[in-house]
Amino acid sequence: MFSIKSPTLLVDEAICKNNIRRMKRKADRIGLQLKPHVKTHQSADIGEWLKEAGVRAITVSSVTMASYFAAHGWSDITIAFPVNPLEADSVNYLASAVNLSILAADLTALTQLESTLDNEVAVYIEIDTGSGRTGFPSTDLGAIREAALFIRKSDKLKLRGFYSHPGHSYACRSRQEVERIHEDARVQLAALKEELQPDFGPLMVCMGDTPCCSVAERFDGVDEISPGNFVFYDLMQTQIGSCTPADIAVALAVPVVACYPERAEVVVHGGAVHLSKDTCQLLDSTVYGVPVSLNGEGWSAPLQDCYLKAVSQEHGILACTKSVAASLKPGDILGILPVHSCLTADLMMGFTTLNGTKLNHIRTSALYSHV
Amino acid sequence: MFSIKSPTLLVDEAICKNNIRRMKRKADRIGLQLKPHVKTHQSADIGEWLKEAGVRAITVSSVTMASYFAAHGWSDITIAFPVNPLEADSVNYLASAVNLSILAADLTALTQLESTLDNEVAVYIEIDTGSGRTGFPSTDLGAIREAALFIRKSDKLKLRGFYSHPGHSYACRSRQEVERIHEDARVQLAALKEELQPDFGPLMVCMGDTPCCSVAERFDGVDEISPGNFVFYDLMQTQIGSCTPADIAVALAVPVVACYPERAEVVVHGGAVHLSKDTCQLLDSTVYGVPVSLNGEGWSAPLQDCYLKAVSQEHGILACTKSVAASLKPGDILGILPVHSCLTADLMMGFTTLNGTKLNHIRTSALYSHV
Repeated sequence: MFSIKSPTLLVDEAICKNNIRRMKRKADRIGLQLKPHVKTHQSADIGEWLKEAGVRAITVSSVTMASYFAAHGWSDITIAFPVNPLEADSVNYLASAVNLSILAADLTALTQLESTLDNEVAVYIEIDTGSGRTGFPSTDLGAIREAALFIRKSDKLKLRGFYSHPGHSYACRSRQEVERIHEDARVQLAALKEELQPDFGPLMVCMGDTPCCSVAERFDGVDEISPGNFVFYDLMQTQIGSCTPADIAVALAVPVVACYPERAEVVVHGGAVHLSKDTCQLLDSTVYGVPVSLNGEGWSAPLQDCYLKAVSQEHGILACTKSVAASLKPGDILGILPVHSCLTADLMMGFTTLNGTKLNHIRTSALYSHV
Repeated sequence: MFSIKSPTLLVDEAICKNNIRRMKRKADRIGLQLKPHVKTHQSADIGEWLKEAGVRAITVSSVTMASYFAAHGWSDITIAFPVNPLEADSVNYLASAVNLSILAADLTALTQLESTLDNEVAVYIEIDTGSGRTGFPSTDLGAIREAALFIRKSDKLKLRGFYSHPGHSYACRSRQEVERIHEDARVQLAALKEELQPDFGPLMVCMGDTPCCSVAERFDGVDEISPGNFVFYDLMQTQIGSCTPADIAVALAVPVVACYPERAEVVVHGGAVHLSKDTCQLLDSTVYGVPVSLNGEGWSAPLQDCYLKAVSQEHGILACTKSVAASLKPGDILGILPVHSCLTADLMMGFTTLNGTKLNHIRTSALYSHV
């Protein structure tokens, strides 16, 4: 592999493109539009891989991210974050440039925004199907109908349908649990659609989360899906049951900086500012990442009995066996499969493919080069 | 206050400068050299505030950070991270430009580095005084003496003394516990100095962690301190007992985007990509931050009975009272005191003072402006 001297986020293009193709094929087979959530990679370059697979619409989590992808040729963008009325000017500008959809999670915010719009914007009413984060509870038909009526009265807003992120699927620890969450959310959304469609014309239902979209097969009443993490997957998704370790498309390459065979530990340059502080439970341990060996073609399966047990700002402490610790030396490079690839990508602000090509990221779009 | 539309990291210059002056006065009073760890702010602008207070030497956690501060006029820099032999060229270059000190935490790594050096580098032997991260155990006199002998034999390396980061102080939950950790580490280091000084000439002892440096008064045998977090402090430090909430010098300004009085919750635009996923325990709850009100002069004390209970990538869920939730509306701006200011600063890549001046950060040094 090309020379690596400091923490570097590697992406295995073949695994990533395979993850994209698999989800696109599933969406096509079931008759869903795949609108991937690009917050995971935040990369126009990886966006091109989505286009190659036939993806035409994307989902983002901020106005800034929408602007970045609009500048890179995307013309159908959903901002899957409650509209911030303070950003009305940017929303208005974007709506003049692309086919823009936003989420209404609070009628006051939508009213404020509407009063300043010049251009037409499509609106999904966000539904809380159990995650307890944002959106109207699916049981609050009165408030949902009130929002739908407000949108219908406006000549700037166009009701597109319902959006829900069943993020409580992240608490699942088996495919069966994920399927239960999915089915529960799906039924709520399908019922809403059936209830309001007669009065409000054709309505779309969009569901977005990687566990449900990876595991579930029944999508009756659903029209669109917007998973994000699936392009890379990560350890958390293996814990949930969404993927296997072989599907993880990113690994943080880290230099070994100190070896302590007597502690059965190795310290690497790879900490919270590279991986994030997200953890998951694997093998009864709290884990910040698991190591793999790097080779010319990519990386190995996770090294047995080894895991990143702690991170500070720049340090990572790898618990391993005494023999693994004795076999490593400072200057060796290991890969670390991240717990949460979205946060690792955000921190690393870019990717390097296995042949050394650098891929961009929204946070480096104004940088001359990767630091 | 100036207009804020999206997540913005505010720094209260008066609080920050006061934190700096207080630590500098303490160091002067006890007769210690203060070499602040600038990983917390990573900002040349805030570095100027250190210079104003009379600080002449700094500590950093990477070669990249050392290069950045060297380019901003710092000439006495300690890289408090185990030397990575792959970065020997950069270390060598830096050593030609500034008075450079490095840490030896592994003799193999030091040997590799030494073989490639052209310029003189000062070396601290890193001592593990109980944190279990990096360094030679203080009890391993044989290995420590071997490292000292290796350094003495080299015409490139110069033994400066011992460095220790008693990071296990972060597990403390009272000033008494911090004092015990400090005293235990201090005694280990003072004994080492006494043991090796006769053979290896004058040796410095440098201790670096904000809890010990904030709380302890006894530093016999210690020559230098390198705390970092104290310039900003944060919620974790209040939990440890290092500071009060009034000493916290940074707050993340976040727009309210959705209000749910019936849930007694408010959702803000401020999540893991702004604050990090670090948590602490306050009021028997796991907390990702606590809210404050912003006003013309800065911010209020923490709002009673309110805390950030969850973050996802961009969302923060604020648990509050029904009346607080009902009193807020989308577009309002709150401040969030961070759990771990070092990680928040790293993520936000810059600071804004209360009069709207933007301060730089190593990660934005090549950006035209803050995103």
